[in-house]
Amino acid sequence: MKGRVKFGVEGLDEMLLGGLLERSICAIVGTYGTGKTTFALQFAYEGIKRGEKVIYISLEEREELLRATMAQKGWDTEGFGDRLYLLRLDPTDFNLAISSIKSELPALIRSTGASRVIIDPISLFEGLFVDESVRRQEMFAFIEMMRDEACTLIITSETETGNPDGSRYGLVEYLADAVVLLRYIRSPGLTEVHLALEVVKMRRSAHSREIKPFEIFSDRIMVYSEASLF
Amino acid sequence: MKGRVKFGVEGLDEMLLGGLLERSICAIVGTYGTGKTTFALQFAYEGIKRGEKVIYISLEEREELLRATMAQKGWDTEGFGDRLYLLRLDPTDFNLAISSIKSELPALIRSTGASRVIIDPISLFEGLFVDESVRRQEMFAFIEMMRDEACTLIITSETETGNPDGSRYGLVEYLADAVVLLRYIRSPGLTEVHLALEVVKMRRSAHSREIKPFEIFSDRIMVYSEASLF
Amino acid sequence: MKGRVKFGVEGLDEMLLGGLLERSICAIVGTYGTGKTTFALQFAYEGIKRGEKVIYISLEEREELLRATMAQKGWDTEGFGDRLYLLRLDPTDFNLAISSIKSELPALIRSTGASRVIIDPISLFEGLFVDESVRRQEMFAFIEMMRDEACTLIITSETETGNPDGSRYGLVEYLADAVVLLRYIRSPGLTEVHLALEVVKMRRSAHSREIKPFEIFSDRIMVYSEASLF
Amino acid sequence: MKGRVKFGVEGLDEMLLGGLLERSICAIVGTYGTGKTTFALQFAYEGIKRGEKVIYISLEEREELLRATMAQKGWDTEGFGDRLYLLRLDPTDFNLAISSIKSELPALIRSTGASRVIIDPISLFEGLFVDESVRRQEMFAFIEMMRDEACTLIITSETETGNPDGSRYGLVEYLADAVVLLRYIRSPGLTEVHLALEVVKMRRSAHSREIKPFEIFSDRIMVYSEASLF
Amino acid sequence: MKGRVKFGVEGLDEMLLGGLLERSICAIVGTYGTGKTTFALQFAYEGIKRGEKVIYISLEEREELLRATMAQKGWDTEGFGDRLYLLRLDPTDFNLAISSIKSELPALIRSTGASRVIIDPISLFEGLFVDESVRRQEMFAFIEMMRDEACTLIITSETETGNPDGSRYGLVEYLADAVVLLRYIRSPGLTEVHLALEVVKMRRSAHSREIKPFEIFSDRIMVYSEASLF
Amino acid sequence: MKGRVKFGVEGLDEMLLGGLLERSICAIVGTYGTGKTTFALQFAYEGIKRGEKVIYISLEEREELLRATMAQKGWDTEGFGDRLYLLRLDPTDFNLAISSIKSELPALIRSTGASRVIIDPISLFEGLFVDESVRRQEMFAFIEMMRDEACTLIITSETETGNPDGSRYGLVEYLADAVVLLRYIRSPGLTEVHLALEVVKMRRSAHSREIKPFEIFSDRIMVYSEASLF
Repeated sequence: MKGRVKFGVEGLDEMLLGGLLERSICAIVGTYGTGKTTFALQFAYEGIKRGEKVIYISLEEREELLRATMAQKGWDTEGFGDRLYLLRLDPTDFNLAISSIKSELPALIRSTGASRVIIDPISLFEGLFVDESVRRQEMFAFIEMMRDEACTLIITSETETGNPDGSRYGLVEYLADAVVLLRYIRSPGLTEVHLALEVVKMRRSAHSREIKPFEIFSDRIMVYSEASLF
Repeated sequence: MKGRVKFGVEGLDEMLLGGLLERSICAIVGTYGTGKTTFALQFAYEGIKRGEKVIYISLEEREELLRATMAQKGWDTEGFGDRLYLLRLDPTDFNLAISSIKSELPALIRSTGASRVIIDPISLFEGLFVDESVRRQEMFAFIEMMRDEACTLIITSETETGNPDGSRYGLVEYLADAVVLLRYIRSPGLTEVHLALEVVKMRRSAHSREIKPFEIFSDRIMVYSEASLF
Repeated sequence: MKGRVKFGVEGLDEMLLGGLLERSICAIVGTYGTGKTTFALQFAYEGIKRGEKVIYISLEEREELLRATMAQKGWDTEGFGDRLYLLRLDPTDFNLAISSIKSELPALIRSTGASRVIIDPISLFEGLFVDESVRRQEMFAFIEMMRDEACTLIITSETETGNPDGSRYGLVEYLADAVVLLRYIRSPGLTEVHLALEVVKMRRSAHSREIKPFEIFSDRIMVYSEASLF
Repeated sequence: MKGRVKFGVEGLDEMLLGGLLERSICAIVGTYGTGKTTFALQFAYEGIKRGEKVIYISLEEREELLRATMAQKGWDTEGFGDRLYLLRLDPTDFNLAISSIKSELPALIRSTGASRVIIDPISLFEGLFVDESVRRQEMFAFIEMMRDEACTLIITSETETGNPDGSRYGLVEYLADAVVLLRYIRSPGLTEVHLALEVVKMRRSAHSREIKPFEIFSDRIMVYSEASLF
Repeated sequence: MKGRVKFGVEGLDEMLLGGLLERSICAIVGTYGTGKTTFALQFAYEGIKRGEKVIYISLEEREELLRATMAQKGWDTEGFGDRLYLLRLDPTDFNLAISSIKSELPALIRSTGASRVIIDPISLFEGLFVDESVRRQEMFAFIEMMRDEACTLIITSETETGNPDGSRYGLVEYLADAVVLLRYIRSPGLTEVHLALEVVKMRRSAHSREIKPFEIFSDRIMVYSEASLF
Repeated sequence: MKGRVKFGVEGLDEMLLGGLLERSICAIVGTYGTGKTTFALQFAYEGIKRGEKVIYISLEEREELLRATMAQKGWDTEGFGDRLYLLRLDPTDFNLAISSIKSELPALIRSTGASRVIIDPISLFEGLFVDESVRRQEMFAFIEMMRDEACTLIITSETETGNPDGSRYGLVEYLADAVVLLRYIRSPGLTEVHLALEVVKMRRSAHSREIKPFEIFSDRIMVYSEASLF
């Protein structure tokens, strides 16, 4: 039986009953400002601290900005050495982006021996395919391909406009083994705003099904798995 | 008159007044994370335990992952012998998927004598047809074809974006003889999250029309048919 | 002045002030699982019991399954003799379905002297026309044609996705003389589920405009025309 | 200054402060079953009783059925003589319908000296135009043309799916001088259903802006202009 | 600094802190029946009373009907002399309408010295452009052109179906300097209906941001700027 | 580590924990009338007062009108000298607008040494691209290009029709480093209207996640960061 991969976010690992399953695929879905990238970085950092190899593919932010983000969290990015492969992929270069992810990523995972891979956000990759049925087919093929690799995969996705419960293209939440949904919760009357997290899905494992508040601090995320909202 | 086919989920069989009708078609509809595959597997397992032959066609998960899921439930998959035909169908290979389901499945059912067939999820099969009227016609033809086979059929479907009461393409709930709707119920203020189940439709039989909470445990599903929500 | 045609559903006939008007067209509209076919069968059975000739055109269920449904209600289908013409129409065979309904149905009604005709569901017939304006024109022409026949017509229709108050294509509720709307009513908090019925429209007659709960029993439908919901 | 044209519906004429303005155009908008045709017939009958000439163009119901409806209200249709021109227009015959309404109607109004004209429902006429901008232009042209005639015009329209406040194509409520909106009001919990009426718009005149309940009796409509809902 | 142009509606001028800014563009947005034309006429009348020249371009109502409306308000339209240029523009004649507004209007403004111009409704002009991006470009160009003229401009617009807060094409509220939003407010349970007004936007000036009830009387509009709703 | 750029709006700078991050991109998103341009101007003014060079690209308002707006706030625009580059860009001239922003803006930033750049509104620039996937690609490329410049960028955007939480094209809130969301808050019953502000997102920095009321005065904006709504 497979082991657990610690996410590295306090409270979330408890909700996952110890972490993600090894070699599973986890989607982090949320509207803008809910901290998707912060979660993804935390997952990467947890691996680095444990001496694992991590591949972080950013379609949105530049390498130097992500490094700045990490530095701002007080992480010693200089000391990461070859444990972090931080790659920027230009989502406007269709052919390059497709071939990088579809043909070069598997080779990179194998050559580096990476055990954690992050694609942030996958929705920009999905958006490269204009035709819906092509997108659907390409995403299936991509997820299928990743299942052959010996790594745990995190993919992040914006939500669909007007539906904060689903990803932008309505696909990855069905394809992924686990889904962590991040939300803004605005109280009636808009007097309070909270961030909240829910593990909506986790194949092959029990998991918490509660909605828990969380906060993003400068150096870490704290999920209040014992607290309740409002 | 036809007999009953036990679903194998405690509480649900009571709501079905003993189980599904023999040779009927049952759709399990729910958003991601509501346990559609778990229900489908439980239905398969119930058949295997009774010595029946079961065909499980997976369009989403790989054979080895489904076997891992079953092992994680404590089921002795080795001991299943030839009672379980677990087939992975690649939803990105249009022609193969269509021909496998449309021409090979009937032959397989007959040669194996399978009494339970599962297609999980049917929505991936539906999605192969880009044109809505072609999809409609193909699904009618498929359901019609399956009615000639001596088996009980379970099909699972994702819900339509933004409408947790209907299947992704709005067809199978009308075509199927029975519909089991799985839902996430989030209490006002999002303080509690429950899974709930409703038998919305069952042709040729009375059935419970209540919404009942359920939980997914590592080794079984428990529908609290005596409890009420909140 | 025209007489009344008893629907054969207790409570509903009271709401219709005695039954449908002779030679009128009644649409039964509801989501899946609300019992549209059961209502249609009950209307057929009422005619058979009275010695009338009934034509039942099924686009969804096979003849033998409808007969099984009737048998399961305890009806002596063997004894129906030539009073019931039960026809299955394959909705995937466009030309056949169109010609059967448009050219053969009138001849059949006249040759059999049928006084009750059921098309279940009309929405499958409507769905044959891909182009909206063609569908609109064809449906007008069909309804117009049926007005020349000496029978009372029941047509059933699925609802439009996300709008439980209207038929799938938004046409038949305007074309029909009477509309019986079937609904699932889920109480706030989803603790209770009821079926409810409303006579929304009835040309050339007064009618009840209340929403009444109903239940489907193994041998009959009971509309609680004296009760109120919740 | 223009005079008033009595609508002939008790309570509504009070809300219109005496009736419609002479030579104005009034749209009656409502979902199916709210009584649009009944209102239109009542308006026709009021004219006939006063010895006026009335043209009633029906795109939905046949002449004999409308006559039956009138007879069922206890009206002596035989005695109407040449005061009522009841015309059925087949909405499936595009060219005929267009030319009848666009070129023959003005001539008919002049030759008969009709002071009341009804088109029931105008939405079927609008639906003849598949292209939205053509429909828009044709409707403007039609309304413009009718303003040259010495009659008061009633047009009825189904509502847009899912929006009970607007007409099916969202045009006539802006083009008409007056709009009478008919609604089904279902109380919370669906325990009560009422019909209610609102004069939403009336150019060149003050008018009631309250929502008033109404009932349709076998021989008349009664708007309870003094009552309030619930 | 620019002066103020009195709107001529009691209560509204207070909410505008004295009136519209000279040479600004004000959009009046509302559903049918909220009094858009009445507001526009009142603005015209205020100018006429002050001896200004006013151009009123009507795309909806005929000149004689607008004059009748004014007469019905008790205004001495005969005495207006050359202070009012009332022009009807046929929105079905595409080329004429476009050229009238785009090339002749500026010349007319200059030759007459008009200080107030009204286009009622601008949404009919917008609707002439079928292609959304062409419409967008043409509207920008038109507004831009009008900024060169020495007049204050009022444009009225229907609302978008189902969204009473925005104009039909979602453009003019962004292009205009000021937006006056007119609404029907129906109380819960529909027992009361009010008209209410809100100055949602006003560039280069402070303004009231409250929602105030108003009534349309036969001879004037009264905004109750001191009252509150319900 | 980067320093902070004061926004120049009281209360907002506190919510941003001192201001925007140097060289970050901030989107101001809001419906019409919420003060997007006022915020943008305030940001420009803060820079000018500090002796910085500011480029303000207006796609909506003319240069002279923006100068009038500033004068009306009591700002000494004459005394700004070469600290303010105020440019009007005609959004109807596709090629010019594209080339101005894509090729000339970087050169201008470098030659002037501008540290603050404003594009108001970016949604008009986005709207130039008719095809959604081209727009997406062009916006990515533009944002990417701007990251090479040594300035802090403010972009404003209208909201999507019917969704006051997202920008018109649903892109900039994901691309920007910071998002300030402006809203109209109408109390239940519409008795009160407030403007409120929320910092929904801020990369590489903690920030307030509360919704705070604000008011626009003739000479400044005041965010009540200590107050709560209602």
